[in-house]
Order: sequence, then structure tokens, then C-alpha cells
Amino acid sequence: MVVVAVDRERLRDTMIRMSEVGSTANGGVHRLALDDKDREARDLLKAWCEASGFRVRVDRIGNMFARRPGRRADLAPIVIGSHLDSQPMAGRFDGPVGVLAALEALRTLDDRQIATDHPLELVNWTNEEGARFRPPLLASGVFAGVYDLDFALSQRDDSGLTVASELVRVGYAGEHPVGGPVAAYIELHIEQGTVLQEAGAVIGNVTGVVGIRDTNVVVTGEDVHAGPLPMVARRDALVGAASMVLAAQEIGLANAPDARVTVGRLSVPSNSHSVVPGRVDMVLDVRHPDADALDALQSTLERRLVEIAAERRLDVSFEQLWSYQPVAFAPHLRDAIGAAAEAHGHAHLALPSRAGHDAWNIARIAPAAMIFIPCRDGISHNELEFAQDAHIAAGADVLLATALAADAAR
Amino acid sequence: MVVVAVDRERLRDTMIRMSEVGSTANGGVHRLALDDKDREARDLLKAWCEASGFRVRVDRIGNMFARRPGRRADLAPIVIGSHLDSQPMAGRFDGPVGVLAALEALRTLDDRQIATDHPLELVNWTNEEGARFRPPLLASGVFAGVYDLDFALSQRDDSGLTVASELVRVGYAGEHPVGGPVAAYIELHIEQGTVLQEAGAVIGNVTGVVGIRDTNVVVTGEDVHAGPLPMVARRDALVGAASMVLAAQEIGLANAPDARVTVGRLSVPSNSHSVVPGRVDMVLDVRHPDADALDALQSTLERRLVEIAAERRLDVSFEQLWSYQPVAFAPHLRDAIGAAAEAHGHAHLALPSRAGHDAWNIARIAPAAMIFIPCRDGISHNELEFAQDAHIAAGADVLLATALAADAAR
Repeated sequence: MVVVAVDRERLRDTMIRMSEVGSTANGGVHRLALDDKDREARDLLKAWCEASGFRVRVDRIGNMFARRPGRRADLAPIVIGSHLDSQPMAGRFDGPVGVLAALEALRTLDDRQIATDHPLELVNWTNEEGARFRPPLLASGVFAGVYDLDFALSQRDDSGLTVASELVRVGYAGEHPVGGPVAAYIELHIEQGTVLQEAGAVIGNVTGVVGIRDTNVVVTGEDVHAGPLPMVARRDALVGAASMVLAAQEIGLANAPDARVTVGRLSVPSNSHSVVPGRVDMVLDVRHPDADALDALQSTLERRLVEIAAERRLDVSFEQLWSYQPVAFAPHLRDAIGAAAEAHGHAHLALPSRAGHDAWNIARIAPAAMIFIPCRDGISHNELEFAQDAHIAAGADVLLATALAADAAR
Repeated sequence: MVVVAVDRERLRDTMIRMSEVGSTANGGVHRLALDDKDREARDLLKAWCEASGFRVRVDRIGNMFARRPGRRADLAPIVIGSHLDSQPMAGRFDGPVGVLAALEALRTLDDRQIATDHPLELVNWTNEEGARFRPPLLASGVFAGVYDLDFALSQRDDSGLTVASELVRVGYAGEHPVGGPVAAYIELHIEQGTVLQEAGAVIGNVTGVVGIRDTNVVVTGEDVHAGPLPMVARRDALVGAASMVLAAQEIGLANAPDARVTVGRLSVPSNSHSVVPGRVDMVLDVRHPDADALDALQSTLERRLVEIAAERRLDVSFEQLWSYQPVAFAPHLRDAIGAAAEAHGHAHLALPSRAGHDAWNIARIAPAAMIFIPCRDGISHNELEFAQDAHIAAGADVLLATALAADAAR
């Protein structure tokens, strides 16, 4: 195993500079997919890659690839990277750590004049978060054949703008076809949980990603004036939705420690102080590492929500938005990550990912793996998200070593 | 008492024509204060008034007055009317019934060549609903000295546009000062409840308006990713808000039949499927006919919400948006309404209003009263809102007779 340390100062400076793009008052970033700040982040990444001589190509869904050629042009690339888009008012590590550690890995190989057989490519995936355009992991999904390109391009944000028009507006409607062979895909990311912190480990060797299912739930009652009608005669959709949110929480807790049940999106179309809500729209997000248990959990939730609706003289309907089955990562890459952590002297452990990542899509078409580093107190999707410089550098070292191991494995 | 019947056909045609402005698929209207459809409704009313020779003046907050002169120019006007703005996706009767019955009353006096001592004025108040600009009853509040003009002009809608700029845009930033003496104010409106329908009465003689208090409630927890962190470690503001919505409902029901407690506005700033909400904003609307009971109810609610926040490791804060004390309407006008209903042979009864109306503000500065007509099943603030033509005509007859009685009372 080749043990090469990245340039920690340069990596730190690169992280700081990127965190200034769309920076928020409390140290986070607001950089929704294909907004002006995402464009600025893309332009900055492109400039850095080109300054180092890595040619950048953009595909039709806006994914950016920066290529360091290998000795053998006939081999598929080893791809490393993550995403630069963010949730609203998010942290500065979720995504950029993986992209900028990949850049640092390429730069280090140049510094040390290390050649690889495979081409090595950095990737920045479009719309990983799904905060602006649904579904999340959209562009890696197109790359992996999970979604049609036309479907992805026609997705709209809450103001009605499409992915296609926003790609053109920000200058990232590329001409390259989406997809292609990948020899290996390796993604570095913050854990977004507390497993590593509690164990005192620096490197998480991710076994796979849990299954995640998102369902649109519409609760329907009757819009009426908040004054005249007696309260007992109301069919208040928000009261029903509130009961459903609490039931979902209870069912989730009853399935600890593996289940996660969340209502993160909820809106009241009438939204007027003097209108008893006749409709509520919400999204139920359900996660479980076991495919059968996920199915059972989803059934339990929907059955309970139907009961609540009936008890309150409301209607409820469900529309599945997306469903990802659990995936397991490639054993030979997981072995390489473990060996790399050992070689660099970092405490490591194996754990599943309970968040969706682009690696989940790519695992369908190529050997894929993920490396986690600790994230303070598990706080993520929050401006206060924090990862230590030393952990980011450790992650970059392991990422580089794993990529070199994947190169040698052929 | 002068008993004159209005022209029912003309009134019905006028109602139908107005309901076409901003009409929705299900027979309602969408005509938010000072939007393009509200402008169209105002233009239509103005054209009708001017075609009948009633001069229209607009004050600085956009209230429209159409004047039929009296024999004595030294007397303050008797004002009759209501509002043309609507809730989002609302019915076509809430507001227009009072404005167009007032127009019909003026037209009928012309037809019959009946002169009054007092000038008679039709009014269309700006932003009664409060659906676009808060608070509701905004412009009648300025008229009555409840709000400063500058405060009202500087209110913003959810997209940041001000009342002042929207008045200019739609052409209703009038030059007349807001306010002035009023000899009597009489407003016809649909009941928006089921009291008249259940009693088989046609005319409601409104005793006064209940007290209404609206409070902004902010629930704060912590934004975290919906996957990695164990559910027990979350501080989910939406789960807390859901518990508060249910508690508010229970407390309201426990104070039946007089109390009304509603959460009609609720939003989740993060609003992402994969973010556990760290903040929820909602508006608590509390109504009670007794001022002391309203205070006690509000205290009980806030105490319970603070307890829920503590139980769930959340914070909660309260900001009073507005508070209207209960008001009683003028006895001599209520007597006139009763006599008018009798004279026209309509079954009538006395009842309080549990909805806020512009008459509530005007009652502070002048003798005021309201006439209710039935509203099918109490459904209002809903496209399916419905009032019978015969009831609208009956209301217009009683409105005209009451205005003539007020004129004679002097």
C-alpha cells in the first residue's frame, strides 16, 4: 500500500476559501443546487482544477468531472468526489469535504509525480441535497440509470423553475452524455452522526447505505372560518396532521435503534390565521438498514395515519416520492479503506450510513465505497456543523490511499 | 318605518358579475387585497357607482366611498358597505354581499326618488381579510384611529411588497385623508356559522363582536440531518409544534361553546425532507365573547405550550400580533334592524359575531351595527361558501330600511 500524506495546509486553505461562497452569519453556507452561489462554487472549483492542469468536462445534467489522465487510456476512471450544493442554512462540510479532498488527492499525486494506470477523476454531482429540486441524489441517479435525463431536467423548484433552465442560466448545461464506465467510486463525507465521536475513531469504513423511502402525505378536511363554526364541527387538517406527526415519532422511537422516521416538510396551503386548515401537505421520510423491516415500518405508519384520519373525519392519501433499497459497498474497496486507515495509524470502525449519498446510486453500476470522518455532536444540515481540520486531512489521506489501492487492484 | 324592496334581479346580476372577478374552478374567488383581481373588482365597483352618478372618492389607505348626497350637507354620512378582498381560494359572498347590497340600496333610493337628510355612502374597505397583509381589518382600523396610517402603509406581504407600493401599482393610492365623522355604520354580511340555518331564521341581528387575539408562536429546537442522529437525541420543533396544536385544540374544546382556538398559519423554515425541523412558526388565534375569559384562555394556552416545550427540550416564544376587545353594537341601530326584519316579514334572531368585521373598528368612533344572513352549513373562507339569492335580497331590504331608520332617527 502506497502511503502518501496530502498537503494539510493547502487542503485547509481550499476548504476555507470554498466556505466563503454563500457563507451565512453563523458560519454555515446557503448554496442551493444551481443558484447563484452554487454557480460561484462551481466556477471556483473549475478554476482550481484548470489551474492544476486537470481538464474539466460537464455532462448534460451539470455533473462536473476533472480528469488526471492515467497511463492506460483504455481503462475506466477511478472516480472520487461528492457535491458542493447545500441544504438551506447548512454547514460548510457536508459535500465540500469530499470534493476538495479529491482535489487535494489529485494535487498531491502531481506534487509527488505519482502516475496511475487508471485515469483519476474528481466529480461534483448536481443536486445531491434535493433541497431545491426533488428528488435528492438526482444527477448521480441519472448517471447510474436510476432516472431518465428528461425526468431530471424537467424537475421544478418551489417557484416553478426547471433544472434544465437553471443549468443554462448558471452556465453548466454541459454537452457530454451522462454516464459511462467507472472502475471504482470512492466518496469521503462527514458522518452526520455520533458513532465515530463516541468511539473515538477518526475513520468510518462505511458498510453500505440504509434504505430510505419518502412519501408525500396529503391530509384533507375542510377550510372554514376560524370564528363562527363550533370547534366540534370542524374538520381541521392541521390538527389531524399534528396527530400524525406525533404518531410517526412514536412509531419511529418504538423501532429504535435502527429506524428513523421524520416529517421535515409540512405546509398549509390556506395558511391564514382565520382559516381552519382544510388541507396539509407533508413528506414522511422513513429509513431502515433492513429492506423487509423498512417495508413493515412503512406499512405500520400508513395504517396508523389512515386510522387517525378516520378518527378525525379527515381523508389521507399517500404518494411515494422515492424509495431507495439498502445497498452494500464493494468488499475490496472496504478492505482497502481499512488497510489505508491502519497504514496511516488512524482508529477506524465499520458503520452503516443512515443518510443517502451519491455513492448509493453509483454502487448500482460500479464498485463503490465511502469513508466517513467525525462530525461534532452529529449536528449536520445546520450552520453549526463542524469537522476538525485534522480529521479532514486524515480522510483525504485515506481517500488517496484507497484510490491508489483501487488502481493497483486491477 | 319605510318599507322598500330592492330590485332582486339587479342585485343578483351584480353579484354574479362580481363573482367572475378572480373566479376559481370550484365556484369561489381568489382576490387578495391589492392584487390584480382586487384591482379589477375595485374598477368594476367604481364604474357601477359612477354610472349611477355616485361620486367615488378614495382615501390614502385605498378605502373607496361612493356618495349619494343628502338634503343636509352639514350632516355626517350614514355609511353602509363591507369589503371586496378575499381569502385565498375563498367564497364569493364574504364581503361582496355587503358592498353590493349597499350599491343596490343606493340604486333603489334613486329608482324610488327617495331623498335622505344625511348623505348615504357606500364603502369598500381595503384589506379586511388580512390574508395578504397583516393585520386584518387594516384600513378600517386606520379610519377608526386604531392604527397609524404610516404603520398600515408599511405592512408587507410574504414577498416583501408594501401596502403603499401596491396601492400605487393598482391605482388606489387616494389623496383623501383617512377618517371623518360617521352618523351611523351598517354592514350586511354572511353569518359564516350555522346559528341562523339551524333556527330557520333569515336575518341575524348582531349584538356585537367577540374578542380576538392573535399570537405569533415560535418553537425552536435544532436542525439536524434526518438520518444519522438517533431519534431520541433529536430536538424536533415540528414534533413539539404538533403537540402544541393538539393541546390548543383540546383547550379550545374544553371551553365550548364560546371559545374558538385555531392554528391556521404554520410554517417550517428548513422545510426539507431530510432535515429534522429546528424551528416552526405558527399563529395562535383565540376568540371569546367575554374579555376576562379571553385573557384567562390565552394564559392557559401559553402556560401549556411552555410546559410542552420544556417536556420536549425545546424553546417557545410568544409575540402578540393583535388583540381586539369584544364590542357591543349600537342599541338604536339594533332596534331598527329588528323592526326592519319584522316589517319585511323575515324571521330574525340576535347573535354575536365570532368573526372580526370592519364594523368592529368603526364601532369605536360611531354608532355601528351588523346584519347577518344565513351561510350554508357555516362553510366560509372556502370556495364552496354559499348564500341564497333570496337571503341576500332580504339582507339588502333590511340594510336599506335600517339606513333609512338611522336617517330618520336624527
